[in-house]
Amino acid sequence: MTHYDLAIVGTGSGNSLVTPDFDDKRVAIIEKGIFGGTCLNVGCIPTKMFVYAAEVALSVRDAARYGVDATLDGVRWRDIRDRVFGRIDPIAQGGKDYRVNGLNTTAYLGTARFTGPRELAVEVDGETHPVTADQIVLSVGAHAVVPEMVTQSGVPYQTSDTIMRIDELPASMVILGGGFISSEFAHVFSALGVDVTVVTRGPALLRAEDREISEAFTELATRQWTVHLDAPVEKISGDARSVTLSLPEGRRVEAEMLLVATGREPSTAGLALDKAGVRTHDDGRIVVDEFGRTDADGVWSLGDASSEHQLKHVANHEARAVAHNLTHPGDLRAFDHRYVPSAVFTHPQIASVGLTEQEAREAGHDVVTKTQKYGDVAYGWAMEDQTSIAKVVADRATGQLLGAHFMGPDASTLVQPVIQALSFGLGVREMARGQYWIHPALTEVLENALLGLDLD
Amino acid sequence: MTHYDLAIVGTGSGNSLVTPDFDDKRVAIIEKGIFGGTCLNVGCIPTKMFVYAAEVALSVRDAARYGVDATLDGVRWRDIRDRVFGRIDPIAQGGKDYRVNGLNTTAYLGTARFTGPRELAVEVDGETHPVTADQIVLSVGAHAVVPEMVTQSGVPYQTSDTIMRIDELPASMVILGGGFISSEFAHVFSALGVDVTVVTRGPALLRAEDREISEAFTELATRQWTVHLDAPVEKISGDARSVTLSLPEGRRVEAEMLLVATGREPSTAGLALDKAGVRTHDDGRIVVDEFGRTDADGVWSLGDASSEHQLKHVANHEARAVAHNLTHPGDLRAFDHRYVPSAVFTHPQIASVGLTEQEAREAGHDVVTKTQKYGDVAYGWAMEDQTSIAKVVADRATGQLLGAHFMGPDASTLVQPVIQALSFGLGVREMARGQYWIHPALTEVLENALLGLDLD
Repeated sequence: MTHYDLAIVGTGSGNSLVTPDFDDKRVAIIEKGIFGGTCLNVGCIPTKMFVYAAEVALSVRDAARYGVDATLDGVRWRDIRDRVFGRIDPIAQGGKDYRVNGLNTTAYLGTARFTGPRELAVEVDGETHPVTADQIVLSVGAHAVVPEMVTQSGVPYQTSDTIMRIDELPASMVILGGGFISSEFAHVFSALGVDVTVVTRGPALLRAEDREISEAFTELATRQWTVHLDAPVEKISGDARSVTLSLPEGRRVEAEMLLVATGREPSTAGLALDKAGVRTHDDGRIVVDEFGRTDADGVWSLGDASSEHQLKHVANHEARAVAHNLTHPGDLRAFDHRYVPSAVFTHPQIASVGLTEQEAREAGHDVVTKTQKYGDVAYGWAMEDQTSIAKVVADRATGQLLGAHFMGPDASTLVQPVIQALSFGLGVREMARGQYWIHPALTEVLENALLGLDLD
Repeated sequence: MTHYDLAIVGTGSGNSLVTPDFDDKRVAIIEKGIFGGTCLNVGCIPTKMFVYAAEVALSVRDAARYGVDATLDGVRWRDIRDRVFGRIDPIAQGGKDYRVNGLNTTAYLGTARFTGPRELAVEVDGETHPVTADQIVLSVGAHAVVPEMVTQSGVPYQTSDTIMRIDELPASMVILGGGFISSEFAHVFSALGVDVTVVTRGPALLRAEDREISEAFTELATRQWTVHLDAPVEKISGDARSVTLSLPEGRRVEAEMLLVATGREPSTAGLALDKAGVRTHDDGRIVVDEFGRTDADGVWSLGDASSEHQLKHVANHEARAVAHNLTHPGDLRAFDHRYVPSAVFTHPQIASVGLTEQEAREAGHDVVTKTQKYGDVAYGWAMEDQTSIAKVVADRATGQLLGAHFMGPDASTLVQPVIQALSFGLGVREMARGQYWIHPALTEVLENALLGLDLD
């Protein structure tokens, strides 16, 4: 039995908990996979590197409309892949080395499960190490879920964990799922020349977005990819060369490769949480209070393991709070989940913060919205943009800003002034007219959206 | 003698003064050139349309580093030009028709000069119309200045007024001047395939920017274009096919076309302002107070004719204030010039707001700065960026934000949260940690710049 001051299970955002406050304490770090977590290894960071290459390819394909004639001669998939992982893999390895050789850290490269309150059994290479700790943080993240129909079919498939490391681009790919992971990979592979088909059970793509955005995006998606909506898969068959999905109404999709992007769930199942008195929600997320405390004394959780938001910036925020709380029991810092933005790096890019129009109505606001076309401001003209929009949602009576939703180039950057306005309580009128907006920068689309709100 | 309630000289931002408050009043509008002013016709708007085409061409040229092999087959200059002016010219014409046929507006398509207080002589097609008005607004803008050495040489030259309408791209172009107009056109023509040389008297380009930005930009400019610094022109010779500039130390530059971009001055010389008691600064700008009032009763000015800032968003802001002030003499609205941002749509793009480091030191602040590389945040990795920077300037003791300066993609969008923070008094710490920054959006470069400030 080895005792630690702190044991951390999972090295995504959890890895940042070892602040200088722990310099004279003993810390155990338990990681069953690759150091650095989802974001670094199979999530935000590598996907954006592929997305950027996809943007470049699309820009070449689309150049002629600007009077620039260009030919896309080819895409060097392996070069792209090796450039991405040539940067990322050494970081994960460096993170591991830093913990393995840390002065006050002991790294266990294996799995953890509770055997009692603040008591873990850690399996490393078939050996079990009993570990106890004054405090334990569960930052185990989440993992891709693959429907039983797929696993039972025996058909080969990829997930977001594997698809970025394939050796060759297939000629065709069918992507199962209608959420952000599906939409990002559809963009990447389509732009790089793969014939992409998206299959989803739902009636639209990106249904977590404001309905107007979801509908507009779905419409644009059908122009870029083959999209099957309302299409629960009835049967899957195939082999290493080809996969066939049977859909309702006799629809069939055949492709060389299947990518499953049907969602992610918290990686909490193997932790034997009941042994420690740690409760979970029905979806497997660990129940935490606003300080990151679970139901069990001295046990904390953060990030995808417990958060409603499967977003790295939220996990980082929670990690900063928990890092503080671990060493300041008398001065706990709460999570702030009021205005959590998100972005989808698909084509077109999408970003959102605050309430959707539907949520604002349900919350009882006297809702007013304005949807401003990029194409109606000067920089949008320059871009010859015909499809991008910025939508703002406000309360008509109070002039309070409630949310904003962007679909178009630079969405994830354009949304920042709205995040800032919401976070610091700036009203629509002050925001629109109390500051300059550079003419003719793309930010004018937000300025004009705000000015277009028909407030009382 | 025709009397009006309001006479407006110049139809750039001045054109927006005819608010519904004037529906039952008589308004004269005097325009000697094209309706819509510099921004619409020869400034911000068309330049950005050319800039965007240039960005597309650069993206094609640069695609291979992302694993995307592309060939730039050619640039259809006339198609680009005709697309731009095919959109703009009808707007200028529409603006003119709207005023010529306006219910309560009389358009004079000619020049105005004062003959006495609130008394103008308007020349239209050789005929003189005496016009008086209760209130007169001078929104006459500015125009390109061409050094005498150029005009006296007899050598053909272009300015920003003419260069965008040329029929063919030259093989080579020499651009005289080191300011933002020079840098934007150098980007446009270089990206579209012209061999560009920039010649400036000064020791660096874009010297109005923070010194670190100016120096870094100058360094990047020399990698893209031939740049002659500290190079006052000693002699100009040439003809319609070729121009030669003789520079100090025996340097010579030869090019097919000469573009003069040595600055702009207020178009106030022909107004006979002394007849009306309207005073000007030494540089020709009309003297106005914070409400836009000149020294003469009932005479106002705004925009490039009077402003320190030759920027359309400033002219628009001043026009909104003056439009209000014209009809609310007891409730005057002041110009707000505290935090005026600006952007240069060159390559790389530049944007700035607030104090430069040098200005902050001169103002007596305990200055702290942080220069954050795009390449050190995740989206910058994706872009493989190696040269872009975000610099923030703050007061070490108070944590007050003082300014920010960006050089890199999306600079003009990234600067907006800083404009907002400055305008509403948000401090560095609150701004950095009181809101979410989407991971991995490019906005993280600003977040990290703020976090990197070594405050007390």
